[in-house]
This record gives sequence, structure tokens and C-alpha cells, in this order.
Amino acid sequence: MEHDFHKWLRDHSSLNKLNEGVLVGIGDDGAILPRTTAHTVVTTDTIAEGSHFDTSIHSLELIGRKALAVNLSDIAAMGASPTHAVLTLLLPQHFSLAETKQLCSGIFNLASDYGVTIVGGDTNRWSGKLVVGATLLGQRPSSLSGWLINGAELSDRVIVSGSFGGSIQGHHLSFEPRVKLANYLAGRYEIHAATDASDSLSLDLQLLAKASKVGVDLLAEKIPISDALKTAAAQTQLDGALYDGEDFELILTMPADVFEQIKADPNVPCQLTDIGEITRPQQGLRILDSNGTFNALIPRGYVH
Amino acid sequence: MEHDFHKWLRDHSSLNKLNEGVLVGIGDDGAILPRTTAHTVVTTDTIAEGSHFDTSIHSLELIGRKALAVNLSDIAAMGASPTHAVLTLLLPQHFSLAETKQLCSGIFNLASDYGVTIVGGDTNRWSGKLVVGATLLGQRPSSLSGWLINGAELSDRVIVSGSFGGSIQGHHLSFEPRVKLANYLAGRYEIHAATDASDSLSLDLQLLAKASKVGVDLLAEKIPISDALKTAAAQTQLDGALYDGEDFELILTMPADVFEQIKADPNVPCQLTDIGEITRPQQGLRILDSNGTFNALIPRGYVH
Repeated sequence: MEHDFHKWLRDHSSLNKLNEGVLVGIGDDGAILPRTTAHTVVTTDTIAEGSHFDTSIHSLELIGRKALAVNLSDIAAMGASPTHAVLTLLLPQHFSLAETKQLCSGIFNLASDYGVTIVGGDTNRWSGKLVVGATLLGQRPSSLSGWLINGAELSDRVIVSGSFGGSIQGHHLSFEPRVKLANYLAGRYEIHAATDASDSLSLDLQLLAKASKVGVDLLAEKIPISDALKTAAAQTQLDGALYDGEDFELILTMPADVFEQIKADPNVPCQLTDIGEITRPQQGLRILDSNGTFNALIPRGYVH
Repeated sequence: MEHDFHKWLRDHSSLNKLNEGVLVGIGDDGAILPRTTAHTVVTTDTIAEGSHFDTSIHSLELIGRKALAVNLSDIAAMGASPTHAVLTLLLPQHFSLAETKQLCSGIFNLASDYGVTIVGGDTNRWSGKLVVGATLLGQRPSSLSGWLINGAELSDRVIVSGSFGGSIQGHHLSFEPRVKLANYLAGRYEIHAATDASDSLSLDLQLLAKASKVGVDLLAEKIPISDALKTAAAQTQLDGALYDGEDFELILTMPADVFEQIKADPNVPCQLTDIGEITRPQQGLRILDSNGTFNALIPRGYVH
């Protein structure tokens, strides 16, 4: 790993938990993590200029934040708690130290919010555009079942967190990854399948359905619409919710009676909405429109 | 993580151990790894077009190979055994599936050689240049001591694997990471400090010396010169060995009697050479030239 980055991180360690609680951290060839009785979950996601952000309109702090947030969303979708991260930065030649600090403060502040210790990284200046990546490790209780993309069962309800659509207006940079929700539900309630809506509600539902070998019936009128789309026409709202992507909400499936219990629990940390049902695989993805007709749902999503 | 990449990996799973021995692997939001009684080591390194390789002269297979090999070198320098990796690919728009396969086969073949299971990744097409990254996890026996960059002790010998210099002629793409050496020595012999020579022998020795708060006396005539430089003038050979960088050899420190035992062990898997001694910090980095004079060694390295 890059020694300049290590030095920089050490010099700015007040920004974040760096090396906290690890046996060996930043400054060596690798980090040595403490042992755990939980299972280790690992995920990686990288965001790049022109695909996932635009430095001419987005603040570097929000760009850094997003790079970690997309990984936190994946860890939440596994029913896990985030613990340690390593970072990858490819910085354009013109990038100043002040700009690097802004970028990293966005990462570090979110890491601090979610108890993530940054244990290493690799940074390079290069002749290309800005790239920010993270690999995030998490812990998942070894006794936890479910919370996998292939776990949906016939007659499960399809439950989503938050609301959907219009993320291009800013939500894709400022969204709150659903870590607290996942950590609250995991172990308390029987969740069969879980994934996060990153590509789009329709695309990620299709992936869940394929992995679980099931069909999905969605109720168009139940899909929660983001504030960003609240003033748009009804069809624009529905299309935005289904196809815009980058909502980073959780999609969960569970038995109907489990969702009844969750609805009655005042401590659930965010809005959850029942938007449909898991069906037999041959029915595929369908959506019930306001006329009471089921139509095939053709998934689309945001192409970065 | 990207679903296209998961599909691609699944379709080409005969190329490598994909998901082998893991609880959940490619295809979900994250991988779930089996529990271990060892410590987990994590390292990350990314290589980028124009900085670490040149697609106009280097084969994609060797580029992919290098992306994993640099991470294997870091794991070896921690005295650990590599186990699982996640990949990051940023592919130029013009990149074909055939090119992607070449790139990945270089990664997969080396992963197979070293028992690394690929458990996930993130791939994006973008408007920039080729970027290939990996985060590598490894296991290090919880009883192992030493093998850290800050572990050098006064009077230790400075021992290096292989030879140095001229890596630009190809070695930086085809080098064999010193995993077998590290796994053989770790636990059998008392190794105090360890790092890998990635930036350059002089720069990485300086980092080891600073981290360990020691000085180093090098013997110029003992430094093993790579075949790539064997026909060069003596000063060119020495400069290349000290400053070229990207040799990816191990730098170890250990008591003199430990190195005597290692020299007498016929099963050590590669050449090891005693190139100097750990001294008091105030002596700094010095090098003994052929006239018997100690000169201050000013570290330099390859600037990517």
C-alpha cells in the first residue's frame, strides 16, 4: 500500500478512527484484524468521475461520502455490521492536498458515523480522472439465517425501506445507507431475502427473483415515491421509482405475519412499505396498475 | 457489486476457484467467509494504465496477473497466507469481451496458483483508462510474532530474496510474489521485520528503518543484481538495484544465527542474501562502497 497515503492518514488521524482496535493498521504492508466469532462479510464498490459523479457539480466531500456509502448499503443488505475498510484513490495530477482532504473528510465522517475503522489504502496520482473505491468488511452473526439475495419464498411479502425515484437530484450522493435498519431487524425478525436497490427497484427485484427462482407481483400504488418526484405526473413518479436507480434502499422479503409484527414495533428506525408479494417463478415480474390489471414488468435501470 | 461481472464470473468459473469454500460468494451483495482461528490480514493495491502498465506494449494477461501479484507480495510481507480476493475493474468503453477475458485469465491463473478464491468484484465501463484493483485477504497464525515493518532490532542482519534492478524490462509484470518463501519461513524461523521492495530497495529499507527506529548499513557488493542488469556497468547495476523499484522481493531482518540456520536449510524455496546490518538510528541509512567507505544512502525510487 502507498506510503504517502499512510503518512497523510496518520497526519490527519483526528478526522477518524484510524487503526482503532486493530492489531496492525495503516503503515505496514497490510492490516491485521482482531479475531471474531462472527462471520466476515466482504464487499467492494468503486465510483468514478463521469460515471457515478461529476466533479464540476458535486462536492468532493459528498463524492468521498458516496464511495463509502454504497459499500455500507451492500453490507446492510447482508444483515451485517460494518467494521473495517481499505480505500483506493486514483487522483488526477492537478488534485491539490486541500482537495484530497475534502474528499477524504467525506469518507472519514461517514466511517465515523457507522463505526468503521479505516485500516489501509492505496493512493496514486495518475493521468486519468478521479476514482474512489473502498472494500468494506463487516461482521454477521454466525447464527443469522436469511438476508441473502436467493432467500425469497413463495407468499413472502416484498418490503422496501424509504422511497424511490429521482435520485439524480442529489439523493444518490446524500443517501443514508440502511445499516441501522439492517442491524435492528437482523436476529429480531425472520427476513428471508435481502438486497439493496442500487441499479433500480425493477432491476434489483429481478435479480432477487432470478436468484431465488421466484416471481414478484408489485402493487404500483404502494410503491413509495421520493419527495424529489412528488410534484411530477403520476406516470413519471412510477417510472422514476421503478427505473431511476441509485436509491440504495433495502428490498426485503419476509412472511406476512413477520411484517405485521414489524409494523407494530415502534423502534424500527425507518419507514418500511409492503409493495407486493413473492409468487411462483413462471409468473415472472408483474405489476398491478390502478385499473386492476397485472402487466409484465420489464426491468430497466440507470446506466452509469 | 456489479451484476454483469457476477454473471461473467459465473459463466467463466472453470477458469478459477470461484466461491470455493465460502458460505456466500459471487452473486450477492457481499461474500460471507468461513470463520478462522487465524488473524485476518487485509491489503489493497490498484494498478492503472500509464502508471503501472502500458496496454500498447504489455499483454492484458500480464496486466491482470500484476494486479493480483502486487497484493500477494504484500500478504507475503506480513507472513500470511492469501485466501480470498475481491476485484475492481474499470474498463474503457472500447474494451471487448475477449480483452476482458484475457485480463481476467491473468488474474484467475495466478489466483489458482496461490490458492486464492475470488469471492466478488465490481466492474464498470467508463470513459477513462484501464484500472485493475484487488483487495486480498489472508490468514496469519495468531501465534506468529514479528513480520512487521517496525520489528527490526539492533544487530539484525538485513536479508533479501531474489535480486534487484531493471524491473522495467519485464520483471515488474512477471515477478513471482514471495508467498511460498514467507509461508515456509513464518513460524519456523524468528523473523523480526518484513516488508516488500515495491517502491525501491532504498525507499522500502528507509521505511522499514523509520518504522523500526533503527539505522541500516548496506554492503554494496552483496546486493544481488538481476539478470536484466548483469551486462551493465558496475555503477549502473548498483544504482538499478537501489533505485529502480518494482522488484517485489522481500526485505527481512533477523538475528545472525537465525540466518545461519536458514542458509543450512535445503528446503528454503528461493535465494536469500545477507546485504547488511541493522544499526543505531542516529547512523541512518549508509552504504559501504568497494573502497571500504561508508556513505549516506539517499533513497530514491520509481515514480509511477
